[in-house]
Amino acid sequence: MKILVLGGDGFCGWPTSLYLSDAGHDICIVDNLSRRKIDINLETESLTPIANLSVRLKTWEKVGGKHIDFENIDIATEYERLVEVLKRYKPDAVVHLAEQRAAPYSMKTPATKRYTVNNNVNATHNLLCALVESGSNAHVVHLGTMGVYGYGWFGSASIPEGYLAVKVDTPDGEIKKDILHPANPGSVYHMTKTLDQLLLAFYAKNDLIRVTDLHQGIVWGTQTPQTVKDEKLINRFDYDGDYGTVLNRFLMQAAIGYPLTVHGTGGQTRAFIHIRDSVRCIEIAIKNPPDRGDKPRIFNQVTEVFRVRELAKLISEISHVPIDLLPNPRIEAEENELAVDNKQFLELGLSPTLLSEGLLEEVRDIADKYKHRVDRSKIPAVSKWRH
Amino acid sequence: MKILVLGGDGFCGWPTSLYLSDAGHDICIVDNLSRRKIDINLETESLTPIANLSVRLKTWEKVGGKHIDFENIDIATEYERLVEVLKRYKPDAVVHLAEQRAAPYSMKTPATKRYTVNNNVNATHNLLCALVESGSNAHVVHLGTMGVYGYGWFGSASIPEGYLAVKVDTPDGEIKKDILHPANPGSVYHMTKTLDQLLLAFYAKNDLIRVTDLHQGIVWGTQTPQTVKDEKLINRFDYDGDYGTVLNRFLMQAAIGYPLTVHGTGGQTRAFIHIRDSVRCIEIAIKNPPDRGDKPRIFNQVTEVFRVRELAKLISEISHVPIDLLPNPRIEAEENELAVDNKQFLELGLSPTLLSEGLLEEVRDIADKYKHRVDRSKIPAVSKWRH
Repeated sequence: MKILVLGGDGFCGWPTSLYLSDAGHDICIVDNLSRRKIDINLETESLTPIANLSVRLKTWEKVGGKHIDFENIDIATEYERLVEVLKRYKPDAVVHLAEQRAAPYSMKTPATKRYTVNNNVNATHNLLCALVESGSNAHVVHLGTMGVYGYGWFGSASIPEGYLAVKVDTPDGEIKKDILHPANPGSVYHMTKTLDQLLLAFYAKNDLIRVTDLHQGIVWGTQTPQTVKDEKLINRFDYDGDYGTVLNRFLMQAAIGYPLTVHGTGGQTRAFIHIRDSVRCIEIAIKNPPDRGDKPRIFNQVTEVFRVRELAKLISEISHVPIDLLPNPRIEAEENELAVDNKQFLELGLSPTLLSEGLLEEVRDIADKYKHRVDRSKIPAVSKWRH
Repeated sequence: MKILVLGGDGFCGWPTSLYLSDAGHDICIVDNLSRRKIDINLETESLTPIANLSVRLKTWEKVGGKHIDFENIDIATEYERLVEVLKRYKPDAVVHLAEQRAAPYSMKTPATKRYTVNNNVNATHNLLCALVESGSNAHVVHLGTMGVYGYGWFGSASIPEGYLAVKVDTPDGEIKKDILHPANPGSVYHMTKTLDQLLLAFYAKNDLIRVTDLHQGIVWGTQTPQTVKDEKLINRFDYDGDYGTVLNRFLMQAAIGYPLTVHGTGGQTRAFIHIRDSVRCIEIAIKNPPDRGDKPRIFNQVTEVFRVRELAKLISEISHVPIDLLPNPRIEAEENELAVDNKQFLELGLSPTLLSEGLLEEVRDIADKYKHRVDRSKIPAVSKWRH
């Protein structure tokens, strides 16, 4: 298939592009390199030494034997160029990862809140509008987040995959309906993904765009079978207080003997997925599009559920690095339970990478190996949810 | 109270500003005059001869005896100026009407779709972000639309005011919850108001902003007790295919003997409200804010429900102008039932202007009086929902 990967230079986008290319698809990356520019503004960088995109692509051509195209386009602002690429490239699928994806960054300042909303909403809407204008029938595979749901909705019920079965009392008796699961986002970033859901649903209904929305858990891990083939293909690993995700941060902190930063009681229960599984899920989604006229197909892209303090305890036991309980900058419940349905991907053949399998490899090959690159001053999470 | 009226030069905003000023509030209009500029691009204009805003304000000072301030700011793009006005003016309430409000215009071209999303989302988000940054405790009164709900959800049940009582089966038994009513917008414009709902809910939760959201029906009528005081205060009356609302279009068509333009079977049932009631509702909402930390208070701002073909039949009988059934440019059900809760406004003292009372006055004072200004070529609705 011909596949556009929007945001194909990012943490999920780069391994996705390589995985799909390796699987025989024709890939064109569309990216404005914004993630690298944000690092420049935050004066931080990936723990792993990531090559620039041209070097990555040349290396992949040599090591992987496949060519990947690249268009440097800001899809949130350069609409006409996006239309032009769709008309010229005629993709069968568009993987849309071109959004600002860090909750702490989205809460940092008025400017980062506004950038996150403006960028994410216009990126998604421009894509949908451009598909209609260009007459494309491409299947949109959008990366959502488990954070659209929020926590603690219906007791110990599992979070369903996108749609919730409800009963409503009416003058005609009780009526049953599947509705889009109510939203309760925990940050401006997560909020933008709840907006995306409504944009996607409207264009699926009005313009018959085929849409799959992947509500992904917190990604951990760094490498995939493709990115390990050459150091110049290495994926990014963020450990800073804005972009680092919780488990990867713990691993890096353990490697350098920095007390593990747990926010609040660590009672937050979250869903996780390894980057290796994330890229597999995206291909499974591409291969299983909904029909034209269907509502968006929604998958929960998660494999395991953990409480943050349990993760910290596990890493602390392995590494003998203590835990540091810090005030929680977020506004959220101190403790929550979480159960998540992920039947669809399992039925379609996903075989998950479990924490117990991937953890030591991650410590050995990434955290230990690159710990000399760490800037300790970038570890604390300083973005606050309320001022 | 000190009140900012964002979009205070528009069809709802201008009579709202005068009504609130007349009631003794201090008013500052914030508007970028975008509605007038869109008329220039569409090469159409209000049936009524509207004065420019400075003339309106001078006339009101003379006739109404009250001063109204004016700041020409595009709140979707001039964020810093919005923050500055909030800090300087210190409003108790902000009435937010600064959005592109026509469904056909929002579906006209890729450019108008993109403008509608970009303008409306950033206007609302900039306001919320600016309230937080400026430390304002102003109550936000936002104009939503009945169109957020969509039609035909739960049989003959009335559309509740914002929140729907649902029951969900869980391993712990049946759990009841009030959730934000599911959205099913019928156009890009209506979709933006569903996005606003999520933005408003997030800032109400995270930043304790007090929010009221008014889901308004189709407005009809032109004048209020304030706008009739001088012809230079007259409100706008749109009759063109993009901005004209259905009942006002029928009245104008009847006045000039133009067959009444019914789209599809006319079986669409819609909720209506007279502009006189609309401005009263806004003041009632201002006087009844939710508490800090509450979820947004949602009112259905409607007074009567009619089927479009019944309205056409009524006007046709009065005027002896025939009905013209045209293909429906919208993608919607040919026929729908509609019942709407509007208890909150009635309990708070709203006494509705009924169609049977306002119709003849509207024909006599507006449609007949200004029919010489009509451009017949602007009557057909040419925007299509799907190409």
